[in-house]
Formats: sequence, C-alpha cells, structure tokens
Amino acid sequence: MKALFFDGQSPSLIFASKPVPETGEALIRVRYAGICTTDLEILNGYLSFRGIPGHEFVGVVEESPDPGWIGKRVVGEINIGCGTCPVCLAGLERHCPNRRVLGILNKDGAFAEYLTLPVKNLREVPPSISDKEAVFTEPLAAALEILEQTKIEPNFSVTIIGDGKLAQLIARVLINIGVRLTVIGKHPEKLKLFADQGVITFLADEISLPKQDMVIESSGSPTGWELALSLVRPRGTIVLKSTYHKKLTTNPANLVIDEITVVGSRCGQFEPALRLLESRTIVVDDLISAEFPLENALEALKAAQQRNALKVLLRV
Amino acid sequence: MKALFFDGQSPSLIFASKPVPETGEALIRVRYAGICTTDLEILNGYLSFRGIPGHEFVGVVEESPDPGWIGKRVVGEINIGCGTCPVCLAGLERHCPNRRVLGILNKDGAFAEYLTLPVKNLREVPPSISDKEAVFTEPLAAALEILEQTKIEPNFSVTIIGDGKLAQLIARVLINIGVRLTVIGKHPEKLKLFADQGVITFLADEISLPKQDMVIESSGSPTGWELALSLVRPRGTIVLKSTYHKKLTTNPANLVIDEITVVGSRCGQFEPALRLLESRTIVVDDLISAEFPLENALEALKAAQQRNALKVLLRV
Repeated sequence: MKALFFDGQSPSLIFASKPVPETGEALIRVRYAGICTTDLEILNGYLSFRGIPGHEFVGVVEESPDPGWIGKRVVGEINIGCGTCPVCLAGLERHCPNRRVLGILNKDGAFAEYLTLPVKNLREVPPSISDKEAVFTEPLAAALEILEQTKIEPNFSVTIIGDGKLAQLIARVLINIGVRLTVIGKHPEKLKLFADQGVITFLADEISLPKQDMVIESSGSPTGWELALSLVRPRGTIVLKSTYHKKLTTNPANLVIDEITVVGSRCGQFEPALRLLESRTIVVDDLISAEFPLENALEALKAAQQRNALKVLLRV
Repeated sequence: MKALFFDGQSPSLIFASKPVPETGEALIRVRYAGICTTDLEILNGYLSFRGIPGHEFVGVVEESPDPGWIGKRVVGEINIGCGTCPVCLAGLERHCPNRRVLGILNKDGAFAEYLTLPVKNLREVPPSISDKEAVFTEPLAAALEILEQTKIEPNFSVTIIGDGKLAQLIARVLINIGVRLTVIGKHPEKLKLFADQGVITFLADEISLPKQDMVIESSGSPTGWELALSLVRPRGTIVLKSTYHKKLTTNPANLVIDEITVVGSRCGQFEPALRLLESRTIVVDDLISAEFPLENALEALKAAQQRNALKVLLRV
C-alpha cells in the first residue's frame, strides 16, 4: 500500500505492506486523513516517533473479528490502552502508561491506505456526517476535553490564545455555552473566521482586555504562556492545549501569589463530538483549506505549514 | 518602639516611632510573632520588601475606632484590600490588585512592639488558645487553603514534598481527612515528627511510591517541581505551596500529555484555623523550635535558618 513514512529525518512516500490486524483489531481502509499540528511537530522530532504518522481519519472496516463491523464507516479513538492496568480499568485508556497512540506512539497511523485499530476503539459515523466532516471528530473531541476537565460557567470571560485549527474548534464549542469569548492571534485572515461568529478578536500586539476567568493556550508557542499568565485573573484558570517540545521558563511564585490553576488538556471522547457534528451544532466545512491525494502527501505537508492554512486533508 | 527593619540589604534592630493607625485601623501591641520561610525569602530579596517584616502574630488591641475591640486578644488577616474594587466586592480581598500585605507588601509587619491593621482584618482569639498557639493561625489558614481550592477525596493518595513548618501543618490537616499520606523530606529529625503520626516518610533520595492522586510542593526549592511531576498520576493535581523567587524551566508537554492540573495556593481564611486550634483538633505546640525576645531578633533569624529548625517565635 502507499503510505507516508517518517524515518526520524524526513518524511517520504513509500510502498509498505498492508498492516496485519493483531488480536481484537480491525483492518480499516482509510478514506480521508487530516493533518494536525501535532503531525508537523512529530516531523520536527516530537516524541521521537518513527513510522507512518496521522491520527485524524475516517475509513471503512474491511476485516474485523466481529463481522458486524465489516463495511461500516468509522472513526477511531487514537489511544490504545493495555486494557488490564488500573488506569484502563478505571476507564482512562487515554492515560494507560503502556498505551500506544495511532500515528504518535508505537503505532502506525492514518497517512496510508490502510491502518489497524482495536475494534473497541471504533465509532460508527452517522450517515449525515460527510467523510470530510468526520475527520474532525478527533480534534473536536480534543476541544471538548476542556469541558470534561474544567468547570466553565456561562458568564465566564474566556480568551483563547492562538487562531489555528484547534483554536477554531475550541471557540465553536465555547460559543455554544454562552461565554464572553475573545481570541488572540497573529493571522488576520484566521481571526476573521472568529469575528464572523461574533467573537472579539485581537492581533497579538494590540491586546486590550480585562483580566479573564479562563485563558486557553492553544498557540503552540512558549510565548503564549507568559501572555496567558498576564491575562488570567487571580484564582483563574489557564488551560494548556498545545503539545510542543520546547521548554519554558517561568516564575512559579506568580502561580502561587495569584492562586492560578493550570490544566493540561489532551484527547477527548469521540461520542459527544459525533453528536455535535451529526446535529450540525458545530460545523467544520469552512475549516478545510485544501485537499490532496495521498500520492501528494509531501505537498500536503507543505500546504499545512503555510501561514494561512487551516485543516489540510489527505484523500486516500 | 523596638522593631526589626530590613533596608533591602540586611536586617537590623532599630528604634522606630510607634505606627499611627489609618482610618479604620486598630493599634495592636504585639505579644508573639512567628518567623515564616517567606520572611527569610524577603530578607533574600523576595518581592523587594523594605520595612518591618513579620506577618504571623498575636497581640492585644490598644486603640480602635470601634472601642469594643480594645483589650481584645487578636490575630489578623494579613491581606488588606482596597475594599472597593470588584475583586474585594466579590469577597476576595486576599487577591485585591491594590492590596497591601502585612510585613510583605507596602505595610510594616509584626516584628515590632506595635502594628496597625484594619479592624475588619482582626479575629478575636478564643481564651483556650495560648498566645504561642495563636501565632500558628495564619500558616494553618494557608494549609487549609488547599481544601478551599481543590477537591481532596478521603481515599486519595497524597504526597507532600518538604518537611518544614508549613508541610507539618498541611500534613496535620490532611491526616484529619483520612487520605493516604506520604511526606518526602531531607531532614530525618523532621520526618520523624510525621512518622510519629502514622505518615509514610521518605528521604528525598530513597523514594519508592506509586503514582499519587495529588502532590503538594512545599519544599521551597525548584527541584521539588520535577519531583512532583514525576510522582503525580495522569489527571492528578500538583499544588504549589512555596513562594520563592527562583525561576524554573519545565516542559509543558508533560502537563498536557498527562493532563496534570497545577494549583497555586497562598493565604487562607482564619476562622476555620481558629476553630481547629480551639478544638485542639490540630495541635501545634511541638512545632516550636525556639523562642527569642524581640531584642534578639537577629539571633532568632539565624536560628530559623538552622537545618533542623521548625517555628521560631519572637516574644515581644
């Protein structure tokens, strides 16, 4: 099969053998895959991943130990827990210490014609959700994760730092709660997408804001941290939503004196994301910048790194 | 009056004029004051304080705009909010952006024969609490603040990093909730005080622990941060309880991937602390290492910096 492979140095298009499902796994023919900022970080060395990247996808089950899945259109939870440790038994397979993660950690991913995943990770995509929309299930679940981890009151003032793909999804989740929402970014064209939905927006060097109840750092840059600290009110919350491999230096006394809470936030549950896509409560079509066939994956990666790019899809 | 004065370089014993109460303030004759690690940090340059340090005290009201207070034995909340801003009006004077803080920020403190504080900051000390015990009201309130900010379940595994004065009070608060408590320290004599109460203890280089639901960093050292990160479970909480002026460098991806919550924690409310001291639910007498007259305050500061010192009191 065709696949994009990362050898630790640079990505290249290869012909690989079709993956063989392990016990409990299904074989899935990928239809679309999405390029996430985490993928770009992986190609920069994040988590030292080697193999086929890609974790946002929609596909069709071709083989399954449970034949009821065959022919079904599916998305898949990306964390594969061991299933037997206390963390997994507590329902937190996403945090299993021995987990593998599709296209991120010890598991080949979705930038290929085929992938395998445990059947228990699969979620059937309702018919009204298009293939391209379904690719957003995983990042929308990551946006919803903030609601699982924190208590956001409808009258909170919330600022998102960052105007990229994930920030757009987080904003659409928060708009639906009624919060007083502000977005700070560096890209006027991307900020316009927020402003069109009634969100207050600022370019990063033009900020004028009262202290905020919550600041969500989704810029992927260490400078976002200091900005978040400067914007959050005493007793407020900073949510860290970017994964990047740079370190940051900070003065912990600032957190102590103002009694700030910092919440790291990663993957979320797929079911609510699918409900929101199915009901069209959250629309995502306008977040697609471009679409490339898998053969042109290298070109797609370049497009995804463009200044004004939002979601770039691979058609498999 | 006699007072300890810090000019930004070194502390010295001086004769200062008795402070004149401002509108709404009482004049208090100090009986005892306690030396806190924050005081030692202030003498190292923390917050650039100049003046009379000291914020843990018990005293007797000599003058008051409300004569009902005169002759009463009191402790005092150390944060003085403006009383009119939205933060104060929301009941969080502790976080008023224009606050002064007794002996810490723009307000002379308790290492003196007299201090002034707004009457609204005063709390009468019940007769069964001794003067020396009453000095612990402020740090005990700071320990209780963790319960105000976080949800600690009785079956949580909680580790305190640090074996100093504040760690001792935090441990006594947590023992009363029933948590599985561990303390990590560097001082065998101090660790023995915890072990005597049934707490599991480790020297810092001998730790063998499963991942913890909560880790409370109370060591006052940046190395405590990395230790806390290594001990907390995914989705667990790190409470930062030390104020120090050193910076720390960390990889925020660790917080994101394991979805850690970090909670900065500072001052607490005095009422529950006084109730716990009055009921003798929490005893503190054994935490007093030494007592010096105010005249020997410089000697007292040296004693407070000794390796095995716990609370050093000034008798005024």
